[in-house]
Amino acid sequence: MIVRDRPSGLRLFLTMRGSILSRIWKSLLVTTVLAIMVTLTGGALMHHKITLTAIPFTLMGLPLAIFLGFRNNSAYDRYWEGRKLWGELVIRSRNFSRQCLSLIGPASPDKAGDGDVPTRMIHRAIAFAHALRHHLRDSDSSAELKPLLAADEWRQIEKVSHKPHFLMERMGEDLRRCLNDGRVDSVLMASIDATLSAMVAAGAACERIKNTPVPFSYTLLLHRTAYLYCFLLPFGLVDTLGFMTPFVVGIVAYTFFGLDALGDEIEEPFGVSANDLPLEAICRGIEINLRESLAEENIPRPFTPVDYHLT
Amino acid sequence: MIVRDRPSGLRLFLTMRGSILSRIWKSLLVTTVLAIMVTLTGGALMHHKITLTAIPFTLMGLPLAIFLGFRNNSAYDRYWEGRKLWGELVIRSRNFSRQCLSLIGPASPDKAGDGDVPTRMIHRAIAFAHALRHHLRDSDSSAELKPLLAADEWRQIEKVSHKPHFLMERMGEDLRRCLNDGRVDSVLMASIDATLSAMVAAGAACERIKNTPVPFSYTLLLHRTAYLYCFLLPFGLVDTLGFMTPFVVGIVAYTFFGLDALGDEIEEPFGVSANDLPLEAICRGIEINLRESLAEENIPRPFTPVDYHLT
Amino acid sequence: MIVRDRPSGLRLFLTMRGSILSRIWKSLLVTTVLAIMVTLTGGALMHHKITLTAIPFTLMGLPLAIFLGFRNNSAYDRYWEGRKLWGELVIRSRNFSRQCLSLIGPASPDKAGDGDVPTRMIHRAIAFAHALRHHLRDSDSSAELKPLLAADEWRQIEKVSHKPHFLMERMGEDLRRCLNDGRVDSVLMASIDATLSAMVAAGAACERIKNTPVPFSYTLLLHRTAYLYCFLLPFGLVDTLGFMTPFVVGIVAYTFFGLDALGDEIEEPFGVSANDLPLEAICRGIEINLRESLAEENIPRPFTPVDYHLT
Amino acid sequence: MIVRDRPSGLRLFLTMRGSILSRIWKSLLVTTVLAIMVTLTGGALMHHKITLTAIPFTLMGLPLAIFLGFRNNSAYDRYWEGRKLWGELVIRSRNFSRQCLSLIGPASPDKAGDGDVPTRMIHRAIAFAHALRHHLRDSDSSAELKPLLAADEWRQIEKVSHKPHFLMERMGEDLRRCLNDGRVDSVLMASIDATLSAMVAAGAACERIKNTPVPFSYTLLLHRTAYLYCFLLPFGLVDTLGFMTPFVVGIVAYTFFGLDALGDEIEEPFGVSANDLPLEAICRGIEINLRESLAEENIPRPFTPVDYHLT
Amino acid sequence: MIVRDRPSGLRLFLTMRGSILSRIWKSLLVTTVLAIMVTLTGGALMHHKITLTAIPFTLMGLPLAIFLGFRNNSAYDRYWEGRKLWGELVIRSRNFSRQCLSLIGPASPDKAGDGDVPTRMIHRAIAFAHALRHHLRDSDSSAELKPLLAADEWRQIEKVSHKPHFLMERMGEDLRRCLNDGRVDSVLMASIDATLSAMVAAGAACERIKNTPVPFSYTLLLHRTAYLYCFLLPFGLVDTLGFMTPFVVGIVAYTFFGLDALGDEIEEPFGVSANDLPLEAICRGIEINLRESLAEENIPRPFTPVDYHLT
Repeated sequence: MIVRDRPSGLRLFLTMRGSILSRIWKSLLVTTVLAIMVTLTGGALMHHKITLTAIPFTLMGLPLAIFLGFRNNSAYDRYWEGRKLWGELVIRSRNFSRQCLSLIGPASPDKAGDGDVPTRMIHRAIAFAHALRHHLRDSDSSAELKPLLAADEWRQIEKVSHKPHFLMERMGEDLRRCLNDGRVDSVLMASIDATLSAMVAAGAACERIKNTPVPFSYTLLLHRTAYLYCFLLPFGLVDTLGFMTPFVVGIVAYTFFGLDALGDEIEEPFGVSANDLPLEAICRGIEINLRESLAEENIPRPFTPVDYHLT
Repeated sequence: MIVRDRPSGLRLFLTMRGSILSRIWKSLLVTTVLAIMVTLTGGALMHHKITLTAIPFTLMGLPLAIFLGFRNNSAYDRYWEGRKLWGELVIRSRNFSRQCLSLIGPASPDKAGDGDVPTRMIHRAIAFAHALRHHLRDSDSSAELKPLLAADEWRQIEKVSHKPHFLMERMGEDLRRCLNDGRVDSVLMASIDATLSAMVAAGAACERIKNTPVPFSYTLLLHRTAYLYCFLLPFGLVDTLGFMTPFVVGIVAYTFFGLDALGDEIEEPFGVSANDLPLEAICRGIEINLRESLAEENIPRPFTPVDYHLT
Repeated sequence: MIVRDRPSGLRLFLTMRGSILSRIWKSLLVTTVLAIMVTLTGGALMHHKITLTAIPFTLMGLPLAIFLGFRNNSAYDRYWEGRKLWGELVIRSRNFSRQCLSLIGPASPDKAGDGDVPTRMIHRAIAFAHALRHHLRDSDSSAELKPLLAADEWRQIEKVSHKPHFLMERMGEDLRRCLNDGRVDSVLMASIDATLSAMVAAGAACERIKNTPVPFSYTLLLHRTAYLYCFLLPFGLVDTLGFMTPFVVGIVAYTFFGLDALGDEIEEPFGVSANDLPLEAICRGIEINLRESLAEENIPRPFTPVDYHLT
Repeated sequence: MIVRDRPSGLRLFLTMRGSILSRIWKSLLVTTVLAIMVTLTGGALMHHKITLTAIPFTLMGLPLAIFLGFRNNSAYDRYWEGRKLWGELVIRSRNFSRQCLSLIGPASPDKAGDGDVPTRMIHRAIAFAHALRHHLRDSDSSAELKPLLAADEWRQIEKVSHKPHFLMERMGEDLRRCLNDGRVDSVLMASIDATLSAMVAAGAACERIKNTPVPFSYTLLLHRTAYLYCFLLPFGLVDTLGFMTPFVVGIVAYTFFGLDALGDEIEEPFGVSANDLPLEAICRGIEINLRESLAEENIPRPFTPVDYHLT
Repeated sequence: MIVRDRPSGLRLFLTMRGSILSRIWKSLLVTTVLAIMVTLTGGALMHHKITLTAIPFTLMGLPLAIFLGFRNNSAYDRYWEGRKLWGELVIRSRNFSRQCLSLIGPASPDKAGDGDVPTRMIHRAIAFAHALRHHLRDSDSSAELKPLLAADEWRQIEKVSHKPHFLMERMGEDLRRCLNDGRVDSVLMASIDATLSAMVAAGAACERIKNTPVPFSYTLLLHRTAYLYCFLLPFGLVDTLGFMTPFVVGIVAYTFFGLDALGDEIEEPFGVSANDLPLEAICRGIEINLRESLAEENIPRPFTPVDYHLT
C-alpha cells in the first residue's frame, strides 16, 4: 500500500512512485507512436484514407463505459472485501485473546504438565495470521511460525499443506481438553468456538478472492475493446484536431490503460505490489495487540512505510 | 472457470479459448453482412434511401446503456453470490469437521456398535458437497456418494429426490443419538446444529439462483433493443463513414452481443461451460481438507486446469 | 414467472408470451400516431413550425437516465429481495423440520394425549408458507390450511385476520409445553425459537415490500418526464430523419414505456402476473421437502410451467 | 406516504396530490421567466450577446449527473433503510410477544403482587414503538404512552428525555426479576435479551439517520451547480430553439429541481410530509398484532389513507 | 459536521460556511487565469494555434465520469460506514449498560471490597468511546479518561499505546471475577461478552477505515485527469464560446475540484474538519445515556453546533 499525501502543484504530474505509469508505458508508447504516424499521413493507411469521424467513438464509448465502470467497481470491491476480511481477523484475534484470558479457568494442579493453555492458544492465533498471509502469498512461513509453536507442533505442521487449517484443528483439540478438565463449561466453549469459526471464515473468504478472478472472458472483452478503441482513435480525430491528435490520444489511452492496469493490480489484493494490502503490517499489528494482552516484554514495533510503501 | 494470465501483444486479439466469440459468431456474421450490403447500396433499401443519422443511436443508447449495465451487474452479482455460497460451504465444512472432532465426546463402551460417529458425519459432509453439486448440475452423484456412505444409507438415498436434504436429516438423527448417549450436551449440540443450518442455507440459496432467472421480459426487451440497434446502425453511419461502416458496426455488435452472451453464461453459474464456477475443484478442496482432518491416508490431489479450464 | 429459453432468430421479435408489449401497446400506439402526424405536417403544430432539434433531448436524457436507471434497479432489488425472503423461508422450513425431528425428545407415556408434536409443528410450518402466500396475495387460504391443521385450531384461525402470526403463536405454545414436559431443554428450545423468529422475519419483510411502494412522487416524476420526452421527440427529429421519424420514435418509446411497465410489474413481486415470483411453486416445494422429512406417503408433485408460466 | 395507483391518460399531467410541484413552483417560475426574458432579448444581457452553445451544458452535465445520481441514490437508501428499520421493529415486536408468552413461566403464588409480567412487557413494547415515533418526530407521546404504562412508571417516564431508552431499562429490570424468581432460566432470558437488543438497535439506527444528514457541502455543491445550469441554459439554447426555449428550459428545470426537492423530502424519512414513512400506521399495526396476541378485546382498527395520504 | 438548513435565494451562492470553496480557491484561480489568458490569445500558445475542439473533452469525459463517480461513491461509503460504526457503538453501549444492570447479580457480602462492578463497567464503557475517539484523532484522552477510571487503572492505562484494547481486557477480567463469584452464570456472561466483542469490532473497523485510504494510484490517476482536463478545456472552447470561455471553465473546474476536495475530506471521516463526523457529540450522547441509566446526578448536556459546526 502506498501511504502518502497527495502531491500538489507540478509535482502532481511528475510523481512516479505509486503511479501506474510504470506498468503501462509500453502500450502507451505504441499507441502514441501509432497516433503520430496517423497524424503524419493525415489518416491514410497505405495511401487509403480511413474515413472515421468522432461518431463511432461516441457509440463505442457506451459499452466501454459499462466495461470500465464494471471492472473498476468489481476490482475495488474485491480489494475492499479483502481489507475487511483482514480487519475481521484483527477483531476476532483481539476478541479471541480476551476470551482466552477471561473465559478459560485455571488448570487444576494435577494437570500442570499441560502447559499454559491460554498463552499457547494466543501464540497460535498470531501464528494463524502469519500462516494465512504466507498461504495467500505462496511464500514460506517457517521463520515466523517456528518461534510461536511448540517444538512437536512445529514438526507436524511443517509437512502440512494447509497450515492455517491445521492450526485451527489444534485449537479445537486444546479447547476439548479444557472442557474435559472443567476449565471451561460448554457455553463458554461454544463462545470461543464461534470466534474460531469466524477466523476460519475470514481466512477461507480470502482464499476465495485469491482463487476466483473476475471471469476471464470479461477481461478479454474489455482489453480488446479498449485497445481497438485507442488504436482507431487517431483516425477519427486527425481531421479535426490535426497535430494535437497524438497528444489527445495519449491522454485518453493513459486513462483507459491506467484504469485497466490498476484493476489488474488490486483485483488480487493479497500480493506485494505497490497498491496491494499491507498484510505484513496488519499481521504485525495483531502480534503487538496479542503480545500486549499477555503482558509480554519484547514486543515488536509496528512497521513503517519504506519509500511510502507498506507491504 | 478459465484460469490464465492475460495474453499480451497481438495474441490478445487471436486468443479463442475463453473468448465469447464462439457463441456469437453467427449473429455477428449476419450483422456484418447486412452492414456490407447497406454500404454497397449507400443506405438504400429497395431503392429507397433510409434517412437515418447518428442521432437516433445516441437517443437509443440511453435505454440500451441502462439495460446492458443492469444485465451486466445482475449477471455478475449472481455469479459472485454463487461463488460466495460455495465459499460459505467450504468454511462451514471446515468448521463442521473441527466441531465434530472437538465437541463430540467419546462413545461409551456399550455403544461401540454405533460406529465412529465423527468420521461418519465428516464423510457425510463431503458427500453433501458432492450431492449438492450434482443436484445443481442435474447429474448423477452415485460414483462419488456410494464410497462415502454406509451401505444401508446408500440404499436409502438412492431413491430420494433431494439428496442433500436427506443427508442433513441423517446428520440430525446422528446428533440426536449423541445427545441421548451423553456424548454432547445440548449447548454444543446447538452449536453443531447451527453449522448444519448454515450448510443447508448455502445449498438452498444455490437452488434459488438456479431456479430464478432474471425476469424473462427483461432479457427479451434487452435482446430486441440490442438487435434492432445493430441492424439499423449501418443506415445511420454509411453517409459519414463510407466503406468503414461494416468495420465499425462489427466492433459495436461484437461488444453488445459479447456482453449479452457473457451475461447468459454467468447468470447461471453452476453449469459446466467455460466461465462457470469450478464446482468440481471446490468439492475436491473440501474433500481434501476434511480427509486431512481425519488424518486419512489416500487423500486425492487437487484438480488442475485442463487447457486453462477448471470445471 | 416466465420459464423459457431465449427465442432465437426472427422469433425473437415475434414472441408475445412474456413480452411487455401487451401492457404498453396503447401508449405506444398514441405516441406513434402522434409521430406520424408530426411527420406529415413537417413538425408544425397549427401551421406553426415547432423549432426543436435533438439537443433538448440530449439534455433531458440526463435526468431521464437517472430516473430510469434508478427505477430499474429499485424495482429489481425489490423483486430479488422478495425472492431471497422466500428462499430464506425454504431454508428455515427445512431447518425447522430437522430441528423438530432431532431436538425434540419423545413424549413421556402419560402425555400421550398430546398427539405427535413434531408432526403437528411441521404441518403447521407448511401451513405457514401457504398462509403467508395468501396473505400477500389477498386470497383465501382455507383450501390449503384446513387439511393441515387440527380441527379446533382451524376453527380458531378462521376468524383471525393475520393468520401467519397466529400460527407462530401456536408454535410458541407447543414449544412451551414441550419445555414443561422436559422434551426439550431451554438451550434446544432457544435454537428452535430462533428458527421461528427467522420465519417471522421473512414473512414480515415480505409484508414490508408489499406495503411500501417506491415513493409515489418518484413514479409520477418519471412518468411525466418519459411521456413528455416521447411526445416531443418527433418535433426534434423530423427535420433530419424525415419519414423515418415515426419508426425511431416508436423504438425509443417502446424501450422507455417497456422499462417503465416492467418496473411496475416486478416492483410488487408477490402478485400473479407473468413476471411475478412463483410463490405457489415455492410453497409446493416446501410442502414436498417437509412431508418427505416425515416420510409421508402421498406427497404432492412439483408444479410445472403452464404455457411457460409458473405462478 | 402517498398510496394510490398511477393516474393514466391526461390525468397523469394534472395530478397535484403527491406531486413535487407544490414545493418547487417558485424556483421553476423564476427560471422560466428568466428564460422568457432571454428569448425576447435573443440571448443578450444588457445589449451584450452571451456566446453560449449547447456544448458547455454537455460538459457540465457530467458532474451534474454524478451529483444528481448520487443524491437520488443516497436519499432513497436512507428512506429504504428507515423503512427496513421499522420493519425490523415490527418483526422483533412480534417475536418479543411470542417469547414473552412462551418462554416466561407462570409466577409462583407468593409473587402474585408482581402483576402479570408478560402483559406488562408486551404493553411496554407497544409503548416503545409509539415513544420511538414521537422521539423521531419531536412530538408529544403522552396521549399514547399513559394508558399503556403503570401509573408510577408513567410518572417516572414523564421527566425522562430519552423515553425509548428508559422503557428498555425497565424491560431489563422486569426480566431480572423473572430470572430471580425462576420464571425464566438464563438461556431463555438471553434469548429475550437478544430481542430487546435488536429493538434498541433499530431505534438507535433511526436516530442515526435522523441526526446525520448527507454532508452539507454535497448538497450545497449540487444546488449551486443545478441552479447555475438552469439559469444559464436559455443562453445556450435560444439560438437554435428560438421561441421553444422557455418551454424546454422549464421541462429540464422541472426534472432537476423536482429530483432535488424529492431528495430533500425522503432523505429524512421520519417526518410527516407527503412522501415520508407512515410511522403512525406502522405503530398501529404493531399495536394490533401485540394486542391480538394477548387476546384483548378492544383492538384498534388499522389506519386507512386520507386523501391518498398515510402518516 | 455542518448542521444547517439549505440557504435559499441568493444566499445559496454566497454562503461560505460549509462550502468547499475555501479548499479549492487556489486551483480554481490558476485555472480561471489560464482560461482568461487562452481567451485573450484566441487559443494560441506561443503564437501557435492549439487545434482543439469539444470532441476530445467528450471522449475524456467518459473515464473522468467513471473516476469521479467511483471516488464520490467510495468516499461517501467510507463516511457512512464510519457513521454506522459509531451508531453501532451507541447501540452496543446502551445494550451493555442494560445488560450490566439486569444480568449481573448482587455481590455476596464478603466481596464488598470489590466495589460496584456494574457502575465500574459502565463508566469504562463511556471511557471506551472517548478513548476510541482520541485514538482515531491522534489526540490526548487524559482529560476525559482520568475521572472515569479507578486510580490504579488510570495509572496503568497511561502507558499503554492502544487504550481501547486495554479497557476491553479489563472488562474481561471483571467479568471473569463476576463469573467466579457466581454473580453471572456462563450463559449470561456469554451474552455480555458478545456485546463486548461487538464494541471491539466497531472500534477496529473504524481503525480499518482510518488506516486504509482509497488506493493512492486511483487518487493520482483521478487528479491528473481532472487537472489536465480543466487546463486544456479553454483551448477547446474558445473558438465557439469566445469571452464566455473563462466563465464556463470556472464553473466546470469548480464542480470537478469541489467534488474531488469533498472526497478528500469525507474519505477519512474521523477528523475535525467541517464535513467530518461529530464524534465529540456522539461520545457525549453515549455518556448521557449511560449516566442516566446509573441514575447519576450531574449529567452533562448535549453539544450544540457552534457556527453551524458540530465536532
